[in-house]
This record gives sequence, structure tokens and C-alpha cells, in this order.
Amino acid sequence: MALALSLGRRGQGTCWPNPAVGCVIVRDERIVGRGWTQPGGRPHAEPQALAQAGDAARGATAYVTLEPCAHHGKTSPCAEALIAAGVARVVAAIEDSDPRVAGQGFAMLREAGIEVVTGVLAEQAAQDLAGFFLKTEQGRPFVTLKLASSFDGRIATATGHSQWITGPKARRAVHAMRARHDAVMVGAGTARADDPSLTVRDIGVDAQPVRIVVSRHLDIPLLGQLARTAAEIPVWLCHGPSPDAERARAWDGLGAQLLPCALDDHQIDAADLLQQLGKAGLTRVFCEGGAALAASLLASDMVDELVGFTAGLAIGAEGLSAIGTLGLDKLDNAPRFELIETQVIGPDIMHRWARALR
Amino acid sequence: MALALSLGRRGQGTCWPNPAVGCVIVRDERIVGRGWTQPGGRPHAEPQALAQAGDAARGATAYVTLEPCAHHGKTSPCAEALIAAGVARVVAAIEDSDPRVAGQGFAMLREAGIEVVTGVLAEQAAQDLAGFFLKTEQGRPFVTLKLASSFDGRIATATGHSQWITGPKARRAVHAMRARHDAVMVGAGTARADDPSLTVRDIGVDAQPVRIVVSRHLDIPLLGQLARTAAEIPVWLCHGPSPDAERARAWDGLGAQLLPCALDDHQIDAADLLQQLGKAGLTRVFCEGGAALAASLLASDMVDELVGFTAGLAIGAEGLSAIGTLGLDKLDNAPRFELIETQVIGPDIMHRWARALR
Repeated sequence: MALALSLGRRGQGTCWPNPAVGCVIVRDERIVGRGWTQPGGRPHAEPQALAQAGDAARGATAYVTLEPCAHHGKTSPCAEALIAAGVARVVAAIEDSDPRVAGQGFAMLREAGIEVVTGVLAEQAAQDLAGFFLKTEQGRPFVTLKLASSFDGRIATATGHSQWITGPKARRAVHAMRARHDAVMVGAGTARADDPSLTVRDIGVDAQPVRIVVSRHLDIPLLGQLARTAAEIPVWLCHGPSPDAERARAWDGLGAQLLPCALDDHQIDAADLLQQLGKAGLTRVFCEGGAALAASLLASDMVDELVGFTAGLAIGAEGLSAIGTLGLDKLDNAPRFELIETQVIGPDIMHRWARALR
Repeated sequence: MALALSLGRRGQGTCWPNPAVGCVIVRDERIVGRGWTQPGGRPHAEPQALAQAGDAARGATAYVTLEPCAHHGKTSPCAEALIAAGVARVVAAIEDSDPRVAGQGFAMLREAGIEVVTGVLAEQAAQDLAGFFLKTEQGRPFVTLKLASSFDGRIATATGHSQWITGPKARRAVHAMRARHDAVMVGAGTARADDPSLTVRDIGVDAQPVRIVVSRHLDIPLLGQLARTAAEIPVWLCHGPSPDAERARAWDGLGAQLLPCALDDHQIDAADLLQQLGKAGLTRVFCEGGAALAASLLASDMVDELVGFTAGLAIGAEGLSAIGTLGLDKLDNAPRFELIETQVIGPDIMHRWARALR
């Protein structure tokens, strides 16, 4: 199952709106088939692994990281495929919460006389598939917030000088993280200040996540990196109810997708923003700031994982903060996170935190 | 020598103005004597170890972390003691840079026919004794700056709420660090806001470092923890050229020591502050903020080691910054540090950094 989970993670970032599932078929203690959800979400993991196994699937055990699907969508149900191939036993990590599946996949298999074992490494599977579950259950994607700052929590000097705070190895690690998410998201201020391309580079990965800019008024330069590449790599612009009409037309012409979102006070409402992204199919979003967007996600308690990169330099209080104002008076109300991992990356520290249960 | 170094570190924080030296005497592959600089700086490590060894010192090897002293001070020179005891060989980590010693200790030993080996684990010795060398060579103590903050670099909410950002294990670790320094130092703002006692508590240590408050006008509450305990545990107040006379008298009456320092612009000059502390005998100072004092030490490039504690919570941009304004425009001018160590302490991360060579 650990192998199936690791195969499943290969699909992260490329198979949305489908879950990134892994499947391993074992016959007589030998692996005869391996599969994972392919880019775009099809084929699913099971048919891939079954095709590889061929006749060897008969009487074999199939390890799958998620309950096999039971509904006819664009492909026929994986549960049917496992039955047709004659597997004797299915070991699954976790049940699917999609109401079209939710136990029916296991029921179909059992009715066909297949032995079904569930709950194997369920915790790891729940973590790997958290984005899919969140989208199914709450309509929003999993949100990773990345902050790369000086050790006093600044992302630039007062004059906006920010290149580079962290080293090349940390930046490479960020590219690898981008590749594991369906989309990379920044606020309009960051898009204006840094003119980022938000692509995955220099790590031998072809697939590119969607690039999202959150900008109430669509106030994003039309001559920047994002505009220039919008025809090749998706750019989605999340804007408020009344964006500048001319800019909207221009971005539409460049190939960007426009997603209207509700406002909360004067800002784009973080909850509605994520609902729109969930509706559009995203399961995992990697937010790279800036301070206002980070604060708005934290204040709405919608940051599931926080990744910090801390560099060995001090910028001082007049530097730009990594996180905007949160309006806290007491520490009891602060958004809290639990440490998952720390790692030294070149001259910097990487630290990952999961949202603490409150 | 590793043992001698670890014995030497036992004296850190208690033997100033003397260096915290360790000594191990080995005869026929057996340890016959161990010693380290005692509280107050005397006895030195060597006579301690020699006394323990007794007759077994004859023909033995003495491992010492610093060149044995050659001058008659309040004790007779350690080099003489080693000769008198009849040791055959002295292995030293590093030469003393004190002009009264500087090679003369080794010369005395060699003249007496003792074999002398130097430079063994010299780098570690240089690190352990950095405060003593800085005081001898530059007149100032080694400065450790501790910052305990949220992951966005804040030490309190806008309303000043700061208890507790880090967990009890991190606070315990801070007490152990205090105990390894000659003095604990804060700015007047921190003394007013937190009313700290700045003592070492709950770790089974009796000796207390000097408590230092830096306050231009001596504007520190006369009814606080420091005032109440100044008669028992030293309190030193570093003030500007014209402190409030009444307050000066009151603090003097309470048993505090007053150290006048020069100003730089409107603040106490960090370089002069440290020169005064060096003159008063300190070799290792542990600064715990606040933001203004931290910034002033960083801006003068006088922070030798930086210890960060990062907690898993966000406070937001309106919270109080760990480091005050540094007046940087470009990142190239930012004070830089190199990572020494990271450690997970309870729910928090501890990270230690050494000043980077520029």
C-alpha cells in the first residue's frame, strides 16, 4: 500500500478534478501491475494497473489508495473493471466520500465475491487525498500557503527589494511544490510587484499548474509574464463583481479565464474565492502571497498547510510583512498550526505546518 | 580534548571575567584528574585537575582547552603548576590571545622540557571561548540575540499580548541558555511591558547571570521584579549621559549598578554599550530584545549568534515586530547569518545562526 500511495502522489497537480489514486496488483508475491491517475484524470489508476497485469490479474490482490469508483462517468466504473479482470482480493486505504461512490464501490466488489479489506494506511491516504475530500465535502480545494521570508518575517525591504531572500535550493524546492498542486495563486499586488511567471521550471517537469491571480479590479499589467504566456499555460483571474470592463476584454482576448467572486467588505471573500476554484475543479492550490491574500486566507481559517522558508538575514520592521493585518487582540484568537516537518535547504530552513484543530 | 572542552563549557556564565577552560589529566590511558574554571574565575582548570591527580600527574599528559596562563595574577601561573607537578606532555586546543600570555605559557612549558602539542580541536575551542577572545581583542563580549516569535516574526499582538507565543519547553530551553551566559540583557521597553525577572529558573541551576537593562533615561519601574530583587541578584542599568537623577539615586539605593554609555543619535550607542560591558568583565551576553535594542545591535553588526524560536501561529502585520527598523533599502546590506542548528522543541522550532563573514 505504501507503494500504491507513492504512485498515487505522482498524479498530484495533474489529474484534477479527479483524485490522484495509486494502484498495485500483486500475484503470488510478485508485482504484476502498477498504475496511477493520469494527467487530466483519465485513465484511472486501476485500469492502468490491470492492463499492465493482463491475465496475471486473475486471482491477484489489487491494492488501491481510494475506494474504486462505482458510477458510469466518462469511463466505466473501476469496480467493474476489477471484477471483470477476476481479481480475488481488493485492499483499499480509504472510502470515497463522493456520494456517487461512498461505499458502493466496495459493495459491488463484495457482491461479486471479491474479498475487500479497507482502512490500510488510511491516515496517509486521507492526507494525500485531502484536496479531493475537501472539494467533495466542502466544495473547496486544499490550500497550501507558502511564505519565504527573512527570520524577522519580512518578504522585501521597504523599497520593495525582494530578490533574493532565500537561496536557489529553496526556490527549486518551491518549483517542486508548485508541480504537486493543481494551481499556483498570488494576489494582484504580488503580480504587479514581482511580475512572476508562476511556472514550474528547472526540475524536469512538463505539466504546468494553472496560474491564478486574485484581483478585485483586474488591476494586473497586460504586458507582464502572465499576459505574455496566458495562451499557452492557463491563467485564471479571480475578480470582484465589477471589474474594469476594458481589462476584462483584454485578458479574455489573451486567453485568460475570468472567475467572478463575491466581496467581503472591500476585499474578495476568501471563502467564496475557494468555492469558485472548487467548482472549477481544483483540488490543491498553492498560494504564494502576497501579504493581503495570505492574511485573508488565514483569517477565514482556510489555510490547510503552511510552508515557511526562513533565510538567515534580518530586514527590520520597516520591511514588507509576509502576512497582512489579521485584527487580532489576543493570542488565543491567532490561527494556529502544528509542525509537520523541518528541513535544512541550502542556507535556509524549510518548515511545514498543518492547521491545528481548534 | 572533547571531554576537556565539555568540562570547560560548564564554567560558561559563572567564571567571567576569566575564560571557561577545561582540563583533563591522563596517565597510562586512565583519567586521573578533571577540572574547569570555577565560579568567579578561580581556581583555574589546571590546578583543580592537578589537585585531583595528585602524584599521578607525574609523567602524565594534560589536556587543556586554552594555553595555560604564564602571568602572576591573583593565582600563580598555571604553566608553573603544570611544571611543578611534573607532567610530561601538554596538549592544548588554542593559544591565548591575552597579551600577558600569548605564547608565553607554551614557552614556559617547553623550556621546562615538557612536550607541547597545540591546535587540537582548535575550532571548537575558538567557538566556546569566543566571548573571552572578543573581550581580549575587541573589548566587547560575545552577543547572543534571542528572538521568540510567531512564524510571521511578531512578538506580541498590537495590544501587547505576548504570553505565551512559544511553549513551556522552549521557555525552559531559554533558561538553560541564560545560564550559559554571564548576563541577560533587555531594553527598557521590554522591562516596562513584561516586567521580567530575567532569572534562571526551574532547571536546577543556582548561579544567576547579571540582569542588564538598557535605558537611556533610566525609565524602568521601581516597583517591578528587577527592582524587588536587585539586592540579591545583580542588576546593571546602562543609561545615557543625563539620566533622571532621582531615579539614578533610587536604583543605586536598591543595589543596582549604573553604567553610563555614549549616545548615537538619540539612542544608546550599541558599540559603546558593549565596550562598557566588556570593561565590566562580561564575556557572554544574552540579549532577549526588545525590537529596538535588537535592531541597534544588528545594525552595528554586533550580534555574534542569533537564536530564533518560531511558534506555529500567525499574529499579522499589526503585531509587534521582533526586530525594529534597520533602515535598509537593499537586501545586499541586510545583516546575514549562517545556520548552525535547527531543533524541534515541543511545538516550536529553535534555530541557531552565526554571524556570516562579510
